[in-house]
Amino acid sequence: MKTISATNNPAAALRALCRSGDFNGPTAGYADDHVQANLMIVPKEYAFDFLLFCQRNPKPCPLVEVLEPGQFEPRSALKADLRTDLPAYRIFEGGQLKEEVTDISAYWRDDLVSFLIGCSFSFESALIEGGIPLRHIEQQRNVAMYKTNMPCVPAGRFTGNAVVSMRPIKSQDVARAVEITARLPQVHGAPVHIGNPQAIGIADLMRPDFGEAVEIRADELPVFWACGVTPQYVAELSKLPFCITHAPGKMFVTDRLNE
Amino acid sequence: MKTISATNNPAAALRALCRSGDFNGPTAGYADDHVQANLMIVPKEYAFDFLLFCQRNPKPCPLVEVLEPGQFEPRSALKADLRTDLPAYRIFEGGQLKEEVTDISAYWRDDLVSFLIGCSFSFESALIEGGIPLRHIEQQRNVAMYKTNMPCVPAGRFTGNAVVSMRPIKSQDVARAVEITARLPQVHGAPVHIGNPQAIGIADLMRPDFGEAVEIRADELPVFWACGVTPQYVAELSKLPFCITHAPGKMFVTDRLNE
Repeated sequence: MKTISATNNPAAALRALCRSGDFNGPTAGYADDHVQANLMIVPKEYAFDFLLFCQRNPKPCPLVEVLEPGQFEPRSALKADLRTDLPAYRIFEGGQLKEEVTDISAYWRDDLVSFLIGCSFSFESALIEGGIPLRHIEQQRNVAMYKTNMPCVPAGRFTGNAVVSMRPIKSQDVARAVEITARLPQVHGAPVHIGNPQAIGIADLMRPDFGEAVEIRADELPVFWACGVTPQYVAELSKLPFCITHAPGKMFVTDRLNE
Repeated sequence: MKTISATNNPAAALRALCRSGDFNGPTAGYADDHVQANLMIVPKEYAFDFLLFCQRNPKPCPLVEVLEPGQFEPRSALKADLRTDLPAYRIFEGGQLKEEVTDISAYWRDDLVSFLIGCSFSFESALIEGGIPLRHIEQQRNVAMYKTNMPCVPAGRFTGNAVVSMRPIKSQDVARAVEITARLPQVHGAPVHIGNPQAIGIADLMRPDFGEAVEIRADELPVFWACGVTPQYVAELSKLPFCITHAPGKMFVTDRLNE
């Protein structure tokens, strides 16, 4: 793997490495100052329903950008191509994962509508800058994510419960973690739940549905944020005939800055 | 005209009077504490484009609610019916105003999608409570609205410039008017321009494109906010084959409270 060059646009550099096939790992920790986004691509036929789902569920689905049908060059990243510039993609058919690929050019159709959805990597920078350490980053793991019993507001054919990400936070820091993330509604905003996993349908914090578990220490509370994996999970539950998403943790890196 | 009864839900009372045909005037000043909304109804065929237009232009088009195709009972108002519960509606065909009616039941179709869009009446209450007087309300006129040269971000077939509303504000109060309305992004948010109408393509403040002119005194600046008439104007410019809107100033009154 090539090292990422320190050009004046590390986001463009990372996208170029994805495009040439030289980078296919998780994007956390790369181009730190830049907004990273979840990707969801659906046929035009379902695009109104999905846009409505995002509008009704802004915490799990804060929209960064929605492209016109058939377009793959987002406004949020200069000369980018959504078909090639992510490390990896997942192809779903009838709600089932069919394939994971590093380029979706062969799947592209003129009726596909791409949605870029805010990602918690942006608020993690804000928490760390606020002096709140995050264990999964210290331990270089993917954040732990869980299916919950909290229903999203349905829209058209999209129905299902929210997925949350969990970070253990020292009890003395919890209020400040809320304050910091509440200021960032474009990346999931304030936590949706604090302290009691059973209350939101999570039986065992050590067995996440996505990502990797981390230890919760005696002076810490589990803090739960709405998660951008929600639309993937809902598309699966809703048996959407066809959609394409990013592979978990392998985001689209935009030119926009977090602050 | 019957007087509006002082039930515990003045919004429901006003809607009932609209439904029975006993109220067809402007809604400003009625059910003051309640969120009022602009109405835009488009066929499903154009609903994705219009929802995308709103998503890309949140200042003129802050969404209160979007209904599923064919539905007319909003979540934001108990037992309401969008086909009958506004004082008056406008029917557009090919971008042309065809008719103004007080009931759209005869025009209803299963493929119609209704959008409720935030309205400046809500921030006007906040300004008045903040000690900033508003001349058009003191003089019981409709607010002055102007077409501008400020382009909206296009979406699908929706392309056009923004419409703004103007309120004369004492220069000493302008900063506070910005602060108060900036806190209300769900109803157009902070002003889009202050002080120089020519800069945004307005030739003569005394000749508004919609509503009524008001005097601007020597110690006042004209302050311009994005306006919910923008989608109507853009639908007209875009020659949308069919749409229905509220009649200017005659809004849908929801059960939601402004604060």
